[in-house]
Amino acid sequence: MSDKPQPDRPDAPLRETATTFRPVAEGMEAHVNVYHPVLDHGFIAVKDYMGDDLSILQMARMSYGKGTKGLSDDRALLRYLMRHQHTSPFEGCVIKLHVKLPIFVMRQWVRHRTASLNEYSARYSILPDEFYMPAPELLAVQSKDNKQGRGDALSAEQSAEVLRILREDAERNFATYHKLLNADEDGNAIDEGAEGIARELARIGLPLSTYTQMYWQTNLHNLMHFLRLRADPHAQYEIRVFAEKMLDVMNDWVPVTTEAFRDYQLEAGRVSRMEIALLRDLLAGKATLADAERYGMTKREIREFQNRFGC
Amino acid sequence: MSDKPQPDRPDAPLRETATTFRPVAEGMEAHVNVYHPVLDHGFIAVKDYMGDDLSILQMARMSYGKGTKGLSDDRALLRYLMRHQHTSPFEGCVIKLHVKLPIFVMRQWVRHRTASLNEYSARYSILPDEFYMPAPELLAVQSKDNKQGRGDALSAEQSAEVLRILREDAERNFATYHKLLNADEDGNAIDEGAEGIARELARIGLPLSTYTQMYWQTNLHNLMHFLRLRADPHAQYEIRVFAEKMLDVMNDWVPVTTEAFRDYQLEAGRVSRMEIALLRDLLAGKATLADAERYGMTKREIREFQNRFGC
Amino acid sequence: MSDKPQPDRPDAPLRETATTFRPVAEGMEAHVNVYHPVLDHGFIAVKDYMGDDLSILQMARMSYGKGTKGLSDDRALLRYLMRHQHTSPFEGCVIKLHVKLPIFVMRQWVRHRTASLNEYSARYSILPDEFYMPAPELLAVQSKDNKQGRGDALSAEQSAEVLRILREDAERNFATYHKLLNADEDGNAIDEGAEGIARELARIGLPLSTYTQMYWQTNLHNLMHFLRLRADPHAQYEIRVFAEKMLDVMNDWVPVTTEAFRDYQLEAGRVSRMEIALLRDLLAGKATLADAERYGMTKREIREFQNRFGC
Amino acid sequence: MSDKPQPDRPDAPLRETATTFRPVAEGMEAHVNVYHPVLDHGFIAVKDYMGDDLSILQMARMSYGKGTKGLSDDRALLRYLMRHQHTSPFEGCVIKLHVKLPIFVMRQWVRHRTASLNEYSARYSILPDEFYMPAPELLAVQSKDNKQGRGDALSAEQSAEVLRILREDAERNFATYHKLLNADEDGNAIDEGAEGIARELARIGLPLSTYTQMYWQTNLHNLMHFLRLRADPHAQYEIRVFAEKMLDVMNDWVPVTTEAFRDYQLEAGRVSRMEIALLRDLLAGKATLADAERYGMTKREIREFQNRFGC
Repeated sequence: MSDKPQPDRPDAPLRETATTFRPVAEGMEAHVNVYHPVLDHGFIAVKDYMGDDLSILQMARMSYGKGTKGLSDDRALLRYLMRHQHTSPFEGCVIKLHVKLPIFVMRQWVRHRTASLNEYSARYSILPDEFYMPAPELLAVQSKDNKQGRGDALSAEQSAEVLRILREDAERNFATYHKLLNADEDGNAIDEGAEGIARELARIGLPLSTYTQMYWQTNLHNLMHFLRLRADPHAQYEIRVFAEKMLDVMNDWVPVTTEAFRDYQLEAGRVSRMEIALLRDLLAGKATLADAERYGMTKREIREFQNRFGC
Repeated sequence: MSDKPQPDRPDAPLRETATTFRPVAEGMEAHVNVYHPVLDHGFIAVKDYMGDDLSILQMARMSYGKGTKGLSDDRALLRYLMRHQHTSPFEGCVIKLHVKLPIFVMRQWVRHRTASLNEYSARYSILPDEFYMPAPELLAVQSKDNKQGRGDALSAEQSAEVLRILREDAERNFATYHKLLNADEDGNAIDEGAEGIARELARIGLPLSTYTQMYWQTNLHNLMHFLRLRADPHAQYEIRVFAEKMLDVMNDWVPVTTEAFRDYQLEAGRVSRMEIALLRDLLAGKATLADAERYGMTKREIREFQNRFGC
Repeated sequence: MSDKPQPDRPDAPLRETATTFRPVAEGMEAHVNVYHPVLDHGFIAVKDYMGDDLSILQMARMSYGKGTKGLSDDRALLRYLMRHQHTSPFEGCVIKLHVKLPIFVMRQWVRHRTASLNEYSARYSILPDEFYMPAPELLAVQSKDNKQGRGDALSAEQSAEVLRILREDAERNFATYHKLLNADEDGNAIDEGAEGIARELARIGLPLSTYTQMYWQTNLHNLMHFLRLRADPHAQYEIRVFAEKMLDVMNDWVPVTTEAFRDYQLEAGRVSRMEIALLRDLLAGKATLADAERYGMTKREIREFQNRFGC
Repeated sequence: MSDKPQPDRPDAPLRETATTFRPVAEGMEAHVNVYHPVLDHGFIAVKDYMGDDLSILQMARMSYGKGTKGLSDDRALLRYLMRHQHTSPFEGCVIKLHVKLPIFVMRQWVRHRTASLNEYSARYSILPDEFYMPAPELLAVQSKDNKQGRGDALSAEQSAEVLRILREDAERNFATYHKLLNADEDGNAIDEGAEGIARELARIGLPLSTYTQMYWQTNLHNLMHFLRLRADPHAQYEIRVFAEKMLDVMNDWVPVTTEAFRDYQLEAGRVSRMEIALLRDLLAGKATLADAERYGMTKREIREFQNRFGC
């Protein structure tokens, strides 16, 4: 699937320009109302935004008053804020997205409560016949060591068989949906003389792979929290691809913040009290890795320590 | 289905008593760890709670200091708080519920963001083979005048046919689920020599009627907001029955608050600027209902005004 | 004090225009970076905003899908959303304000938790010598019937005396502040050979009337909640004047929403279960106001009922 | 000042026991309704709580279903949750405190928005004549290298002089308060024939050191966030002493969680992308500290790296 911006969708407003006194983030303007495809039928599009790197600094400088003389350099101050988790200035930037996504992804997404959302209502309107089918190469067996992850990929034949079964089921569920509604996708009656059951009931048999859509809005502080969890390798692939596209958009929006976010959060890590003590002694030559258990670390913690610090 | 408390479920902790210095709500103690059935496979159970009618008053009295002399009567002060929407003292009461519910109900439930929740994870564990089937008498056609509601009930034959189709589809979806997992409900391999696909993928074909469960915790202020929306006749039946059971529990927990909640919120209403003006003139004999449109009310508003005030 | 926009303050960014693909609210653009004076030294200024009346509708229409055909008229749909408290589409609009206000007003302001804020830090920087002095005509005795309000105004002589005392105290407090800091307003040492005590300590003797400033950001849903409480006649005068100015700004930003807000919220009201029953019977000629107590209303409720409905 | 529990205050409810089916945290019961003194006139007291170490585990185990077999040990699972920042199970524990504190501390405290609070209202009631005076040994000059901190302590004479000035000012402000109110601390008129000005106005000249009080309630997840910021050496001393007392209480309430909190949060730290790279190379002998700047670290970051890792 091509990752380059599609032409606007038919139902999207035209990209018209207007004049404003507000701060404008040049890199973000290129995204407004442009629909980026994600997964087989999904997308994300920026509908609106507020703020940029400079407006974060403006808020921070007001707080500190004349006390920020020592950090007169913009990049240095932004990195200082990120490093010390002075989060409130980042709340001043806001992003509003239009997202189309499978319901099982939506269910993970809404766990992030500090956001505003409006979702398509299947009580009011009929859901389109769209459901998610994984690309064949994504199908994998249950991971042995990661309770919530994937292991080895399936063979081409196995994948084809799994997808055939999933597709057949989903198509049958949608056929049932329309039969119960007595309506096709456009709401036209199938049997003119009959009535369909209530939309709120007819949809209960649809699969979790069904696509829904929403407007989702959050501030930059909460967006970064979302990305820390969802752009992480432990996140399910199907939400991670949305997060990765959002990280790209963020980079065009607030490039200095995004660089600092990578350095101090996304590609950074925590070290426990025990790891700090161990690192001190390793660096001072007072301990070797064989002593790690003495510091109160579990086998799993020691393994992860080794992976991170390459020792 | 019987509405009386079931014996505790096997996995529920024993109902053991302990001694505490904390406020105790006698009526609520009878609910702790008792599982109340809701719908065909669902339940709600109080796992813990904090506060009672008196603790709401204690918070309010601390705020107002000696300024509450005029409202020395407990019931009067509680009703005053409710009437004037002094909501913060109600936040001091907290309830923690264990709830089992269909996923399409869960999706409505989580729209209430000011709550804490932990849901069963289908990435970690296999979902039991339980899905919601409406009672036959609940099946109804789409309402004509309520975009999101139900109209006339189906005939017995129609209901039976709808349920047969829904059940068949759901059973097929669950069969697929186990086939893809290569595991039965208890996690035992079906084909010992084969591997199943990842749980996070196998579940995407399950229907929205599948049961999930969660711990859900909120404070009394937010609980009342939930009940205003979800114990309302416009709420979908399948969430309303949960809300109604919660309202019963609330009444046993904080009876004076619940009475005030009914009087000033649940069975109360709003009157618009136009309705206030119309009511003044109706009562003064300066207008009749025929004049309503002159006050800026729409036809729908006039109809609802008539329904409420019986004129 | 003149209420017309002051010229931009020296530290305000120039009002420069740029081109954007985002929605633009024409009436709001006139406010961006314009400082409106409030009280003797305070102000509010719009620093940024997001959304307009149309973007609220766009979010609502996405939710309801094709189910909104019946409300194709923009104004009718917006009023419907407001009337039925479908609040989430209003969360899509955001406003960021720069506010300068006395600390005792700030303490009321921050009770609204669903907002982002950055306040000037008196640990980092020296507070300017600015404190609030009420206009003489605002000074009033404690209200007898309103526990938290003002009664009759003072005489001119009494006012002058009160202000003299308040001013003298505040000036003395600020003199102490600078003495302890060993620094003037610009941070220059008073006694070159001495050191001042820590800023975080020196400020503890400043009065609650001291001015502070902040960036404050909230969405339109929460702004309306703020205005319902703070533009209300029961709010303290000194926060109400800020709220009233914000209501003016809101009217220029989202005029159709503001009209609906007035009709269904600000100038609307609640009627209790008892009031609904009484109104039904009054309109049907089955009761007179003398019967009100029989409906379970208190004397205070009856008095307020009479005030509202003029009977 | 003695740190051991004072006898209950006269206005505190008797410590009476009752029987409950709820989880009980033995160590916490000893704190319920016991008032711990903090600063010269302040206190904190636990009024109510919900949950314990085991109830956190119960929530986590429900989420993971049978997927937690590998972490059957209670302590191991709690530490796993803390280490991986699986925060939602900690939200299931709630604490309600009664706190008396100076207003300038309150203003820092309320920056934590995810909590419920009810504060004493100076619009309704008269504030007692209580203001904070730092202990003489706490008085210190402004720190040179920490913009928001304290440096060297004052001499005994300097301290005495500073306290004399602060006390004189505060006493004068309270005298003005009573004069304007025409009321003593108990609300009795000073001049029977005269009226006082409104309480909401009379208080604007009181100092930021004035004591106020509140009920404050938050869940354990948010409490830990509060403690991370406020039990930190960079926090102002006057809020830190409250945080430290709360940490003691937390340790009696949820001891296993508190141990994990210290190990993975309070005494742990973050390492940036650059620090991880540097540590890898230091441990592999491929770099020395002299190379740190090449990794993109600032001088300040290098200094802090050295302090932490002792090299």
